Amino acid sequence: MTYTPVSHAERAIRNGHPGIIVWFTGLSGAGKSTLSSALERRLFDQGKVVYLLDGDILRTGLCRDLGFSAKDRHENVRRAGEVARVLADTGCIVLAAFISPFRRERDAIRAAMPAGKFIEVYVNAPLETCESRDVKGLYKKARANQIPDFTGISSPYEPPLAPEVEARTDRDSIEACLAQISAVLDRQLKP
Amino acid sequence: MTYTPVSHAERAIRNGHPGIIVWFTGLSGAGKSTLSSALERRLFDQGKVVYLLDGDILRTGLCRDLGFSAKDRHENVRRAGEVARVLADTGCIVLAAFISPFRRERDAIRAAMPAGKFIEVYVNAPLETCESRDVKGLYKKARANQIPDFTGISSPYEPPLAPEVEARTDRDSIEACLAQISAVLDRQLKP
Repeated sequence: MTYTPVSHAERAIRNGHPGIIVWFTGLSGAGKSTLSSALERRLFDQGKVVYLLDGDILRTGLCRDLGFSAKDRHENVRRAGEVARVLADTGCIVLAAFISPFRRERDAIRAAMPAGKFIEVYVNAPLETCESRDVKGLYKKARANQIPDFTGISSPYEPPLAPEVEARTDRDSIEACLAQISAVLDRQLKP
Repeated sequence: MTYTPVSHAERAIRNGHPGIIVWFTGLSGAGKSTLSSALERRLFDQGKVVYLLDGDILRTGLCRDLGFSAKDRHENVRRAGEVARVLADTGCIVLAAFISPFRRERDAIRAAMPAGKFIEVYVNAPLETCESRDVKGLYKKARANQIPDFTGISSPYEPPLAPEVEARTDRDSIEACLAQISAVLDRQLKP
């Protein structure tokens, strides 16, 4: 006896949209969590299948064997990308929020996805803005050399060269940024 | 501005069931793929949110840095469990099909899940039966010492001590085994 595997097409019909990754990258404090959680709520209330994947979920589970060395941080982003891919494979709109400072790592995830199924959202606010927000008090610790290799302070952040969306959270309202993302997302989700 | 995160309860209402892991363990050739793929089709056609997670998906992605040493095989099962947990967190019925020969590894995944949200299905057929099926030709290679640490031949398989389901694929039909699993699953999915 053989069974027809559930196809991507079947899942897309059921959900009303295909699986896709919306990847939020940017400095700590740039607004990745704010934007991605607002978008999760909006998409869910629209009846879409959506899931917010962030570092907190992975650090206590899949990535708990990893520290904060350069090598481990690379591996952390690689695994995050792979989990996002599996989630997208289920037919989900995956909102992935990770600092993910290195271009090569983000591009590798994009390359592994079908064309148009990876939307890179560069959450952009100047370092000074992010540092003045300092929601988690991390910049203060980083300036006091209590956190090594802190992105933006003691470790580089490589901005995307051609992101699908650049959200300027220092200048535009959350609503305006969400509208920007939604415009791109809606276009990609069309059958 | 704050946004209410999408809760498990909301997802469960939307889907008509909570997220859960159905973990298929057993020797190569015992029938894990047959049972899990048949169950995926059945649950999907019932309108449920279901996803089949197996080694093939992970080996080419998340676990492509791992080989087949004892240590790497442990890590492979650990990561499979963590991905299954994330998938269950999305509200999905996760069908995870992995030989996962060691009791401790399976028990660790169970321990990380809420009570009743991990259903262990011991797919049980005698080694001789599995070896005579030899769908992928792996036993032949293992007997010729071409595959080291092959479960059941040169590496132990530790049967579950108290699985929620024991499916005897050598004795019972696929339909009968599915009925056994469905009875347990339906009970756990009740609100």
